[in-house]
Amino acid sequence: VLCGGVGAAKLLAGMVRVLEGDALTAIVNVGDDFELHGLEISPDLDTVVYTVAGAIDPERGWGLRDETWHAMEALSRYDTETWFNLGDRDLATHMYRTERRRAGAPLSQVSAQIARAWGLGLRVLPASDDRLRTIVTLAESGEQVSFQDYFVRQRHDVAVTRVDFDGAADAAPAPGVLDAIAGADVVVVAPSNPLISIGPVLAVPGVRAAVQARRDQVVAVSPIVAGQALKGPADRLLGELGHERSVLGVARLYAEIAETLVIDEADAGYAEEIGRLGLRCVVTDTIMRDPDRAARLSQAVLAAMP
Amino acid sequence: VLCGGVGAAKLLAGMVRVLEGDALTAIVNVGDDFELHGLEISPDLDTVVYTVAGAIDPERGWGLRDETWHAMEALSRYDTETWFNLGDRDLATHMYRTERRRAGAPLSQVSAQIARAWGLGLRVLPASDDRLRTIVTLAESGEQVSFQDYFVRQRHDVAVTRVDFDGAADAAPAPGVLDAIAGADVVVVAPSNPLISIGPVLAVPGVRAAVQARRDQVVAVSPIVAGQALKGPADRLLGELGHERSVLGVARLYAEIAETLVIDEADAGYAEEIGRLGLRCVVTDTIMRDPDRAARLSQAVLAAMP
Repeated sequence: VLCGGVGAAKLLAGMVRVLEGDALTAIVNVGDDFELHGLEISPDLDTVVYTVAGAIDPERGWGLRDETWHAMEALSRYDTETWFNLGDRDLATHMYRTERRRAGAPLSQVSAQIARAWGLGLRVLPASDDRLRTIVTLAESGEQVSFQDYFVRQRHDVAVTRVDFDGAADAAPAPGVLDAIAGADVVVVAPSNPLISIGPVLAVPGVRAAVQARRDQVVAVSPIVAGQALKGPADRLLGELGHERSVLGVARLYAEIAETLVIDEADAGYAEEIGRLGLRCVVTDTIMRDPDRAARLSQAVLAAMP
Repeated sequence: VLCGGVGAAKLLAGMVRVLEGDALTAIVNVGDDFELHGLEISPDLDTVVYTVAGAIDPERGWGLRDETWHAMEALSRYDTETWFNLGDRDLATHMYRTERRRAGAPLSQVSAQIARAWGLGLRVLPASDDRLRTIVTLAESGEQVSFQDYFVRQRHDVAVTRVDFDGAADAAPAPGVLDAIAGADVVVVAPSNPLISIGPVLAVPGVRAAVQARRDQVVAVSPIVAGQALKGPADRLLGELGHERSVLGVARLYAEIAETLVIDEADAGYAEEIGRLGLRCVVTDTIMRDPDRAARLSQAVLAAMP
């Protein structure tokens, strides 16, 4: 499963209800990773682990449930930025990752240890162990900012003219990534933002080609329903970056790499046009309101191949 | 004031009651500094700031009062060492220091910012901006361990054969240290462990000579009362490292750099012998049971010069 954050994590939480955990490999976006207060933060990797472990805060959609914020409150005493909230228990994950990384462990190894510590059976792999950073160019100022600056500090409430993946050209797929894609019965593209969540995964040299080589077994799930992203700025970004702001825009982005596109019932009217792009359409309820529906969507995804 | 941790911090908390804060400079041991979970930790600097700010936990003597431990509890899920406790609010200080240090700020600058953030008037200087680490050789194994390993993990409950200050030879005094010593009306050596708290301060090239050059204005306060350290292993260390395990051992260590030694009433009987070492003795109550007594001791220290 190629993964971004929240949408992918929900799908994975459904997948582990219909498959054995060890049959699953999550290949997770690292373009949102960043350093803050000396700590290494990997938001999408953590969202995947916390969600599959049932520990994510269901209201916020990020971070841990029953969290406290004492460190952040104390940090406000100091002259530093506090727009990115880090919960006290969540901090432990960043501290552990930072410690292990500074001791020389690659991110893939640390991510496996974190997943194991949370008792997960599925394999959690970063797309790359190398530094890859999503950089967003803002329309108004022309400024290039980090993904978190755009997404959290500016609440993705500003227009964007381009997205770059800094470091991608020199990044290598993390150990296991290409093998997992090559050996999978089904390669799933999770309902994550195609431009800023799946984009950075495919931008790691070798990954797009590996997925494309398995096109017949690739099932993508649209994150756009009735022209809107369920969460985040995927719909606006599609428009701002010159794509159609609907499931059709998603279909065009995935037509080269996927045989099948799972779309929501609300978008059934697009099925024919998507078919003309050479994509098989599977129409189902894609909105994962709860783990049961995530499990049902997972079954539909796994059954989607002809 | 040359400072270690707890004893020095209590004296400083008394000093700020009898002097304007901006008349005071604390020159603080950095030999106990270390890195943990990717964060830079400076225990003595923080103990000084938290204590003078009235925020130290009075029971533990370290860390913040009304502290919570959620991050540490969460950290125990991971495969890492958890013998060094970091409170949630305390973590903010380490996160801020680490962030600023990684951005290139020297420890002295960060320490000044932290002291200011806590509203302190006194100047808080690390003895050095360079890496200096107290290394303890254990008697039984011959193993060389970090100060925190000895002090916290092994609860200073093991015999020691030597103490080294790794990096001291290449360390420079932090900006302001030598000027503060040269320009002070009184140079105070706080009632800290002479071997592992004051020792690393004096080991920074230039500091011992600067103090010695002001010997007539140097007043040291004994951390040993009636043959015992009020806190920590100073008494045992004196014995293990070949010094007399009493205020006399302290006097011999300080005779070259101090004109005056403040000793406790319990040790009045040593005054004559200390006098023969060329040290003036001032006998008073040195046990800082509360801030009032710390203030009285501060007055005695400041009045100690002839």
